[in-house]
Amino acid sequence: MASTVGQVMRRMASTAGQVIRCKAAVAWEAGKPLVIEEVEVAPPQAMEVRLKILFTSLCHTDVYFWEAKGQAPLFPRIFGHEAGGIVESVGEGVTDLKPGDHVLPVFTGECKECRHCKSEESNMCDLLRINTDRGVMLNDGKSRFSIRGQPIYHFVGTSTFSEYTVVHVGCLAKINPAAPLDKVCVLSCGISTGLGATLNVAKPKKGSSVAIFGLGAVGLAAAEGARIAGASRIIGVDLNSNRFNEAKKFGVTEFVNPKDYKKPVQEVIAEMTNGGVDRSVECTGSINAMISAFECVHDGWGVAVLVGVPNKDDSFKTHPVNFLNEKTLKGTFFGNYKPRSDIPSVVEKYMNKELELEKFITHEVPFSEINKAFDYMLSGEGLRCIIRMEE
Amino acid sequence: MASTVGQVMRRMASTAGQVIRCKAAVAWEAGKPLVIEEVEVAPPQAMEVRLKILFTSLCHTDVYFWEAKGQAPLFPRIFGHEAGGIVESVGEGVTDLKPGDHVLPVFTGECKECRHCKSEESNMCDLLRINTDRGVMLNDGKSRFSIRGQPIYHFVGTSTFSEYTVVHVGCLAKINPAAPLDKVCVLSCGISTGLGATLNVAKPKKGSSVAIFGLGAVGLAAAEGARIAGASRIIGVDLNSNRFNEAKKFGVTEFVNPKDYKKPVQEVIAEMTNGGVDRSVECTGSINAMISAFECVHDGWGVAVLVGVPNKDDSFKTHPVNFLNEKTLKGTFFGNYKPRSDIPSVVEKYMNKELELEKFITHEVPFSEINKAFDYMLSGEGLRCIIRMEE
Repeated sequence: MASTVGQVMRRMASTAGQVIRCKAAVAWEAGKPLVIEEVEVAPPQAMEVRLKILFTSLCHTDVYFWEAKGQAPLFPRIFGHEAGGIVESVGEGVTDLKPGDHVLPVFTGECKECRHCKSEESNMCDLLRINTDRGVMLNDGKSRFSIRGQPIYHFVGTSTFSEYTVVHVGCLAKINPAAPLDKVCVLSCGISTGLGATLNVAKPKKGSSVAIFGLGAVGLAAAEGARIAGASRIIGVDLNSNRFNEAKKFGVTEFVNPKDYKKPVQEVIAEMTNGGVDRSVECTGSINAMISAFECVHDGWGVAVLVGVPNKDDSFKTHPVNFLNEKTLKGTFFGNYKPRSDIPSVVEKYMNKELELEKFITHEVPFSEINKAFDYMLSGEGLRCIIRMEE
Repeated sequence: MASTVGQVMRRMASTAGQVIRCKAAVAWEAGKPLVIEEVEVAPPQAMEVRLKILFTSLCHTDVYFWEAKGQAPLFPRIFGHEAGGIVESVGEGVTDLKPGDHVLPVFTGECKECRHCKSEESNMCDLLRINTDRGVMLNDGKSRFSIRGQPIYHFVGTSTFSEYTVVHVGCLAKINPAAPLDKVCVLSCGISTGLGATLNVAKPKKGSSVAIFGLGAVGLAAAEGARIAGASRIIGVDLNSNRFNEAKKFGVTEFVNPKDYKKPVQEVIAEMTNGGVDRSVECTGSINAMISAFECVHDGWGVAVLVGVPNKDDSFKTHPVNFLNEKTLKGTFFGNYKPRSDIPSVVEKYMNKELELEKFITHEVPFSEINKAFDYMLSGEGLRCIIRMEE
């Protein structure tokens, strides 16, 4: 049974300012199963918040950095960045949050002071923009986690695979306390990214056509955005036809598997739509899918949005006349949401039943079985696995 | 001395429905001087309008198709597409225009019926979009010009190097009759293209920074747009430093000649602007300039707009992470203006002194000396040469 908020709050009152000893899932080595350890979590410093994580979920980015095939390995480390929690205590200078507030930690932040935060158009905060190479807190360049004096590295400023974690206040969205954290925790990363790519960047009009490249959790969230926007045709593109049936739940009306055609998928889509779709959203990270997603939009008004993260050496290539024919190419980071300013309203979209989150949640495991969540992800099974921190 | 409108109208009354014999500058062969000939101009057919041209100017596109180095040659032909004139007579079904109306012919049209015309976002009319290969009228696939029975081809539906020409009603913008045609005729093509690229597509905010690639007439019109929008820094980029002094008149505040630097010009601009300009507009057609124009905009909010026409075999290449960092790439055609709906309001911008056109007009010749206008263009001298049809 999960604790009541009251119980959590009573325990919190006694821990403020103290080191907390709790359970965390530690990645000691690249690609090796996480180990549940007792860790020490130091109190929050200036502009930091310590929170109790109640639910966390697993995202591809955790797995990518845990496998550490493409980057410098940083271990031992506590992964996790999609989560919901309750503020336990706050450090000096934190005025926006207080113990008991419900929050979603976010892997990128909003300082509210820099040029990006002050721009209406950007969410790429100069101070708190995602940094996957940094394993320590900004304030003192040190970790708040340790095991018998050995520091354990943070991950993207969140490290939610721990019963308690310390996060910069700029990376916490304060949300409606009535929102069920075991559902809205998925809004910390992938679902908001896909949803915002459509709603904030592609902005399809009611009755328009939208192509979604990649029908994983992010792509299906982009489709959910198109459904919410009232698109009349949502064309799902994936190399795995097994995903098509599931995708119908997310409003996808038609399916294209590029493997079924000899011609480029952008030509297939142009033929289906009398010249091209009104909008497209690319959620795979494959450079060929990016080019197809751009070239499949209609001239005159088509807008393509890139979401998927490409490889380091990729090059986007197209004939420039595609731009002169009034096609637009944009990209997005975290769906163009500003974490603190905008995510609370995404939670409200769920609360008022505009946005459906249940269908993204296909698995649930207790914290002690967190490695199962990795197995599901690695085998491509399901969309999101919720990890319950309390047994 | 130019005729008064009254005199023009009296002559018109007697010519409606008749073949008009008048002077036109005929291009008999690629790259050879035009020859002033007496041509026959047939009456307008359904949805066509015959107009008397009072002033025309010369644009690079005329010269490009007259040289016919890159396309199938179509001769004999009457070039010309930047002009101002007065309606002489209208064909069946034309209700928007009547004899005496002042008009600017435009190389691309607006049928007001197709998906593009009905879209708020597009100006790429399905019926009347520019077609440089067609030398005849849409209605019957024939020319309205002839010399002793030999048809002379039209050019982009306008053929304004003639005292009278026939144009589809969808390619005519009806303008304020008080507007001086010897000035506003330059709004038929290049100046509107550059101006609209900035005002309609790049949309810089007041106080922002804008880079303009290419300081010919189109680029300077883009700079004029940035000046009108209230940009505080307008950075002109050109390989010809001789253009910098003239460009100051158009609001350009700083200059970069890429030849003066060893590093790519996008890096030079990023250093000048603390990370990149807010907007850029590319008006050269060089593929390298296009890539630089995109990469020199700031992450988070930068928008680059392509205007220049690339070569057939060009490929636009960039790292896709530039898009994910929230830079946007767009292109434009005729500055996203719809010819009939929008150009009259651009004329009003000139009338209310918001837009300055005089500074674009550097030369003027009588019709008999039209080949001088080609000489000025080919030697890169000046911006626009106005050709007076009446001596």
